[in-house]
Amino acid sequence: MSMSEKIKIEKKVLSENDRLAGEIRAKLTAGGILALNLVSSPGSGKTSLLERILKDMGDKLRMALVAGDVQTENDAERLARAGGRVVRPIVTGGACHLDARMVGRVLEKLDLSDTEVLVIENVGNLVCPSSYDLGEDMKVVLISTTEGDDKPLKYPSMFRRSSVMIINKIDLLGHSDFDINRVRENARTINADLEIFELSCRTGEGLDAWYAWLIDTAAKKRKDRNR
Amino acid sequence: MSMSEKIKIEKKVLSENDRLAGEIRAKLTAGGILALNLVSSPGSGKTSLLERILKDMGDKLRMALVAGDVQTENDAERLARAGGRVVRPIVTGGACHLDARMVGRVLEKLDLSDTEVLVIENVGNLVCPSSYDLGEDMKVVLISTTEGDDKPLKYPSMFRRSSVMIINKIDLLGHSDFDINRVRENARTINADLEIFELSCRTGEGLDAWYAWLIDTAAKKRKDRNR
Repeated sequence: MSMSEKIKIEKKVLSENDRLAGEIRAKLTAGGILALNLVSSPGSGKTSLLERILKDMGDKLRMALVAGDVQTENDAERLARAGGRVVRPIVTGGACHLDARMVGRVLEKLDLSDTEVLVIENVGNLVCPSSYDLGEDMKVVLISTTEGDDKPLKYPSMFRRSSVMIINKIDLLGHSDFDINRVRENARTINADLEIFELSCRTGEGLDAWYAWLIDTAAKKRKDRNR
Repeated sequence: MSMSEKIKIEKKVLSENDRLAGEIRAKLTAGGILALNLVSSPGSGKTSLLERILKDMGDKLRMALVAGDVQTENDAERLARAGGRVVRPIVTGGACHLDARMVGRVLEKLDLSDTEVLVIENVGNLVCPSSYDLGEDMKVVLISTTEGDDKPLKYPSMFRRSSVMIINKIDLLGHSDFDINRVRENARTINADLEIFELSCRTGEGLDAWYAWLIDTAAKKRKDRNR
């Protein structure tokens, strides 16, 4: 197959995805629901972050969680155990990213009338999920201090398309050559508008600022709907 | 586009890749060169492992390294600085995996007559690279103790298609809930034949066993050629 054929097919798949994502976005926006697409490498701590939010904020913020995985429903099970009110798994069965069709199918069956924040936990992958709009308000990219601080430069598309970067595992700073100032600089080189949070899901350090942002951003989304 | 159309296209791409990979494999085998396809999440330590091998084994083993990245030539530059004799970058420009065509193009221009081991450092991604044969003798999958110990279950295809699993960053054991026995069990559930090494590129612990395996396996490959 020629390169131009391949590109044509890819464009068709993506434009179909964008149409479905637009439908999801319209529906969520009409409901005043803040929708986040949480992306990262495998093992940066997406599920741990959500477990922690459920524990600390479960009473204050009505959340619905959709947890994508290539295989197993481990993440969704962890989130349900952590007290998640509405948790649904998506098992992609090999696919390297969630797409709008998978998300749409799950949301159809959910009663979101009572929900303030929807978090879609994507498959652990810093490449492919960046191309697929899921109807979210914004992508939140998670990076941990045990990865390399050049990740924003090496996976620029993901950091360019994200609105928020969370640096997780700051309790492990000093155990590697990871330089937190350098990762900030690298990320801002790719995307000057990135909102950046530094925290540890393990010790709880830095979580307050992120929670305050989350509450504030959800409130704005609700207000927008009522206008 | 229908699902069956998509599957048909994917099959065509993969069979083309397999044909090219077969050509690469034949050429490397004729040269008695052991070829490893090194795969992992972003940040598990693929480049650190190769830097360490170059430092410790650069005199004992004639290696050629091909370092794939979505963007930047950072990894190839690190490896050249670490004393790599033959180092070549592949920048995929957005693609989430290396394929046989990219690797073949680089190898064409390399004089490998003096090489015992070729390591191809794949793009950091636990999903897509599992589908693309690069003509290697085996895949070596790296996982670090700062990721979750359920990764083999969540990304089974990669662990099924790998022959070796290296658990890196054992110096950080105890800083998280990562259970090294559980990751072994999970990996063996997926692939009972996996050869497993535990090491730390930072402290050097456990590297000797891995080096011994590498020397031994390269010697076998040379001997096979001479038969």
